[in-house]
Amino acid sequence: MSVTAPLGFRAAGIAAGIKASGARDLALVVNDGPSRAAAGVFTANRVKAAPVQWSAQVLSGGRVKAVVLNSGGANACTGPLGFQDTHATAEKVAAAIEDSAGEIAVCSTGLIGERLPMDALLGGVETAVSQLSRDGGLAAADAIRTTDTVGKIAFRRGEGGYMVGGMAKGAGMLAPSLATMLCVITTDADLSSEELDAVLRKATGVTFDRLDADGCMSTNDTVLLLASGASGVRPDLAEFEKVVTTVCADLTRQLLVDAEGASKAIAIEVVGAASVEDAVTVGRTVARNNLLKCAIHGEDPNWGRVLSAVGTTDAVFEADRLNVAINGIWICRGGAVGDDRSKVDLRPRDVTITIDLSAGPHSATVHTTDLTAAYVHENSAYSS
Amino acid sequence: MSVTAPLGFRAAGIAAGIKASGARDLALVVNDGPSRAAAGVFTANRVKAAPVQWSAQVLSGGRVKAVVLNSGGANACTGPLGFQDTHATAEKVAAAIEDSAGEIAVCSTGLIGERLPMDALLGGVETAVSQLSRDGGLAAADAIRTTDTVGKIAFRRGEGGYMVGGMAKGAGMLAPSLATMLCVITTDADLSSEELDAVLRKATGVTFDRLDADGCMSTNDTVLLLASGASGVRPDLAEFEKVVTTVCADLTRQLLVDAEGASKAIAIEVVGAASVEDAVTVGRTVARNNLLKCAIHGEDPNWGRVLSAVGTTDAVFEADRLNVAINGIWICRGGAVGDDRSKVDLRPRDVTITIDLSAGPHSATVHTTDLTAAYVHENSAYSS
Repeated sequence: MSVTAPLGFRAAGIAAGIKASGARDLALVVNDGPSRAAAGVFTANRVKAAPVQWSAQVLSGGRVKAVVLNSGGANACTGPLGFQDTHATAEKVAAAIEDSAGEIAVCSTGLIGERLPMDALLGGVETAVSQLSRDGGLAAADAIRTTDTVGKIAFRRGEGGYMVGGMAKGAGMLAPSLATMLCVITTDADLSSEELDAVLRKATGVTFDRLDADGCMSTNDTVLLLASGASGVRPDLAEFEKVVTTVCADLTRQLLVDAEGASKAIAIEVVGAASVEDAVTVGRTVARNNLLKCAIHGEDPNWGRVLSAVGTTDAVFEADRLNVAINGIWICRGGAVGDDRSKVDLRPRDVTITIDLSAGPHSATVHTTDLTAAYVHENSAYSS
Repeated sequence: MSVTAPLGFRAAGIAAGIKASGARDLALVVNDGPSRAAAGVFTANRVKAAPVQWSAQVLSGGRVKAVVLNSGGANACTGPLGFQDTHATAEKVAAAIEDSAGEIAVCSTGLIGERLPMDALLGGVETAVSQLSRDGGLAAADAIRTTDTVGKIAFRRGEGGYMVGGMAKGAGMLAPSLATMLCVITTDADLSSEELDAVLRKATGVTFDRLDADGCMSTNDTVLLLASGASGVRPDLAEFEKVVTTVCADLTRQLLVDAEGASKAIAIEVVGAASVEDAVTVGRTVARNNLLKCAIHGEDPNWGRVLSAVGTTDAVFEADRLNVAINGIWICRGGAVGDDRSKVDLRPRDVTITIDLSAGPHSATVHTTDLTAAYVHENSAYSS
């Protein structure tokens, strides 16, 4: 299933020998049409990996025939030679499926600053093409994993019978990233690239964009949405946006749960904000506060750390009108001590921190994880 | 020594019973004049503790007779009653030394969101006043410690024989903070409060402001500069600024070395910047990157994480003109692989990361620490 749940898509995931472990490391997704309309969103990092530079150019044409993705190397900060490697990869796929390299997107994930083993990669492309199938979605999702402990897939059926499917790896996008986040979403609905673009931006804006594991932003983050049109269904755009958003939210949740070293999944729910932007700013700032993330790890309802994080933002609020609840207990009211903190039960994995800015009707939720010794270990013990 | 190194100051540090451990927790510094000119800088956090609100008001008058500081409780997010506690503390000091509460500054540090044990604190003020002495500087520095493993003191003699002395606790200020940072600097030079204010802002701007342990900003950070004029020396302002900056830099270094759980002291040296602001922005952003801080902890010269952090800033640079050295080895040149990374020796405690933006003549250095399991433990195992 995953990216092959919709009609018109074949996929493969194989071991090309890019990863020293011998695990799967190359995925290919091919759109058999009849449409090949597509849209993409990419990292906002100004240091962009070669595949991001290449794919952004491809997507500007609004059409994608295939996506080739590799784990085992990010091909970021590799200079002009790295860009040539991405170009050669697209050309190789194009030759193997007899199409144009200008409509082949490329995604890479892994260590920054090292060239890819191109012999292995190009040989792997041939193998992947030979293994393309309507059943290849799971293998493809497996092949893009780096430190992910499980592959992430999702799919939903829309009104009229069209399908939306997706696969993802990593955690975070645009602002955040635990490692690179890559995601390919497919649909057999019939929509133009402009329609896909509008829907993808809205859907990612309220899902992946509101996941912030550790405040770090990758050089490689990419989310692609490909439409084959094979179902013949032209969905209502609002309904389609809802389905795509659901798939993105499902994948976001899977990324959050699998975040490196995390022991808690924390939802920062900001309410009473003067604007959605204020709510997201406050949520993101609190999500990035190391002291708070340590406190939640230690199951300490330290609302003072919430307030000191809120106080560093430029959101509209008055310090003496802030209210904070942790797992439903309003332990801070009016900027000072509220209900008994001993009532807060922080043992469950899921933690909700609610911040009421008392400044307006808007709200937003940002998702993050706690900060643990396991996170430090995973990110210091080896390069990734 | 410390705050009592200059003429005209007496100090005391005593155990008032605020800390459950029975350790010293109350410090008092009194300026015997003839001058009582003073200046202060405070946290930029919009959630300000009661003592910060009080002391900012006191300092707006440009005169300080005494500073009373307590550890064991921040008196932050304690509402109007917390502010009354600060006011009562200042009144108690004023009564005991027969002066005006309007010229008594108050500083607090410890857990946010709890009222101070006022009986213990007010009783402690009486004891502290009775123990004020010209030798009290070390005891005062000891009494303001929280998680600090050692007291931090510094002093320098200026031209013409005047002295500057100081004490500090914590790590970080204005932008950063590991916990609250409090600092009192004294001098027997004869200067106006306006002169002190200008010098203090410049000195803290290039010292404490460029220390960023974990990107968190306290509700209580305070740096005060008090002048007794007792030496009769009116120093040259530029020379005085240099001496105060040296004392601040010395204390900054002590805070950095004692930062919670740190195993590395990291200097992020940004050169080739289009402006000092760009250099500081890049330095601070890199200093806050958890992935990089983990890598340095693991002695992994992961320059890719440096570049991805730089890429999130709005500083002037081109990605393919960035150069990065770690401990003197230029492992990234022109945004891509440079010298052999195996040449980088990351075993020493001191680590220097040099980032050349190739965009101009300006530079700045931001100091930070690595991210360790010990940091997580210290900040999750108990409230602070």
